[in-house]
Amino acid sequence: MGITIRKIAKDLNLAVSTVSKAFSDSHEISAETKRKVLDYARKLDYVPNPYASSLKGRRSGNIAVVLPEVADSFFSIAINGIESVAQERGYHVMVYLTHEDKGKEKSIVRDFRSGRVDGVLISVSCGSEDISHFQDLISRKIPLVFFDRVSEESSSSKVVTDDFESGFNATEHLIERGCTRIAFLAMSRGLNIVDQRMSGYKKALIIHDQETKEENIISCPTDDEESLQIIRRLMGRGDRPDGIVASVEKLATQTYAVCNELDLRIPNDVKVIAFSSMQIAALLQPPLTTITQPAYEIGRAAATLLFRSLLKKGTEVDAERIVLPSVLIDRSSTR
Amino acid sequence: MGITIRKIAKDLNLAVSTVSKAFSDSHEISAETKRKVLDYARKLDYVPNPYASSLKGRRSGNIAVVLPEVADSFFSIAINGIESVAQERGYHVMVYLTHEDKGKEKSIVRDFRSGRVDGVLISVSCGSEDISHFQDLISRKIPLVFFDRVSEESSSSKVVTDDFESGFNATEHLIERGCTRIAFLAMSRGLNIVDQRMSGYKKALIIHDQETKEENIISCPTDDEESLQIIRRLMGRGDRPDGIVASVEKLATQTYAVCNELDLRIPNDVKVIAFSSMQIAALLQPPLTTITQPAYEIGRAAATLLFRSLLKKGTEVDAERIVLPSVLIDRSSTR
Repeated sequence: MGITIRKIAKDLNLAVSTVSKAFSDSHEISAETKRKVLDYARKLDYVPNPYASSLKGRRSGNIAVVLPEVADSFFSIAINGIESVAQERGYHVMVYLTHEDKGKEKSIVRDFRSGRVDGVLISVSCGSEDISHFQDLISRKIPLVFFDRVSEESSSSKVVTDDFESGFNATEHLIERGCTRIAFLAMSRGLNIVDQRMSGYKKALIIHDQETKEENIISCPTDDEESLQIIRRLMGRGDRPDGIVASVEKLATQTYAVCNELDLRIPNDVKVIAFSSMQIAALLQPPLTTITQPAYEIGRAAATLLFRSLLKKGTEVDAERIVLPSVLIDRSSTR
Repeated sequence: MGITIRKIAKDLNLAVSTVSKAFSDSHEISAETKRKVLDYARKLDYVPNPYASSLKGRRSGNIAVVLPEVADSFFSIAINGIESVAQERGYHVMVYLTHEDKGKEKSIVRDFRSGRVDGVLISVSCGSEDISHFQDLISRKIPLVFFDRVSEESSSSKVVTDDFESGFNATEHLIERGCTRIAFLAMSRGLNIVDQRMSGYKKALIIHDQETKEENIISCPTDDEESLQIIRRLMGRGDRPDGIVASVEKLATQTYAVCNELDLRIPNDVKVIAFSSMQIAALLQPPLTTITQPAYEIGRAAATLLFRSLLKKGTEVDAERIVLPSVLIDRSSTR
């Protein structure tokens, strides 16, 4: 006799429907019974067909994490936080990359409508504020939680950091270290967190009686070579900045690379502070001062909110907004 | 009338079974018809239920990439290579992380048996050479391709670099720069590529008449803190090494961190070369000499082999072994 739900039911002296409900994570049976069935199935090395059970219970056992990239240390650490929660719940985490391509993001999210995953965690790509693909998921009762890069227009839960305050603190830090021509490196296309950080930058300049100059707010495209070219132009200017706030990690490493090329010394010629979770920030030449987000905790908080929605499937869950604070780590690049 | 396969068939003047075959990527209909159906479905914003079609056609439209981690730059770049191929074929890439946990690897791979994905690309975790979970996939005709960290015991296709030669070249490079006490930093648990790199290291020592000392071959555990502790002990020794070959990226950054702590200067006190694809290797203090694998090309080659198997579903495909060469990039850490 091959291993079937029928055999498991017989061995455990349970109804076939009970075993089936255990596999579809139904709320009609107790947690204890569920565990008993799953443990026994594991012992027998039995894998229920996810497609067959999905047709009824709509439970795939997967959650999706949609990210712009994994090369950024924030995202690679946040994934670990998400996985730590998913593992406790027995879920698989599948990571999908959008490469900052809004079209790709839409195509990926649209595909989730069919029940491929039970819930979605997303950090949005740069681009338009069209949110129809998110609303579409919500209307199909597939839970969605935003983290870090959120879509403010969407009604779903969000886990973010204090981007405005961090942008303010980063800029004030440079002012305290004597900078008078501070540039802000932004991503070229709309990204809510970058806008927030930029607002903090502008506010700090105003408070400290420094002029906000449009030519010091630099839009860098996602293409690396084009972005490097723009930073080269900035650092080659006669009135080149003496302080840089890099709003995302890779703009900081690009600034370092350009300063190397142009023989500009950090921090003597220009001081640099960046939003970054890089563990090796301290090993750069010179060590990089960072605004470091609690990446692991953000991942955990977002996953925890998602599972809360999953458990209450069908019933409305109030959307929440969780704000976790970042920290400024003072290193040689701003001394 | 909601959008159904029936409506699409009617509008395109095709049989319902033909439309259904287009969605299940059947070989019984022409590529042209398939495209016509899929284009029209996209236009109508119609998403076929992947589970329903999977039950018949067993095509999920997903491929899995199973990795130890994404924090290592090799893997984050390899993913991009894999995605570039998958995108051309209209497949989704799902990334699963094992965190160097063989048990987790087995559990993930075992789950694929049920048809959750159409094919699997994997870089194995450290640990035992048990390959039953791989053989199990193969026996179920779910194509599997190894890349970088391969399981030599398995009969599947593999894409690797010239690890023995690279280990040899890295060590010879340090010898040419005057090192006489060269240590090799390995991962503590069995990993074929590290063994190969170590064999290259030993061979270079022999060729250049240097003694191979067991106390210079250091096993570093996957836990970061424990690994740092072992490197601290190594660099605190009276006969501490004057050259280090780091067999994986994170052992290089750990060596940098320990040298900073102990006030040892690289390259004067100790020269360091590492297997790494880090783009910011050149920005470290000092810039790090690397053996850099062609990560993007390895990803592309592995995905290309996988799709070749997918297209020949059911028929045997001869396993291949593709070897792509790494390059040594000479920077200040070994000057």
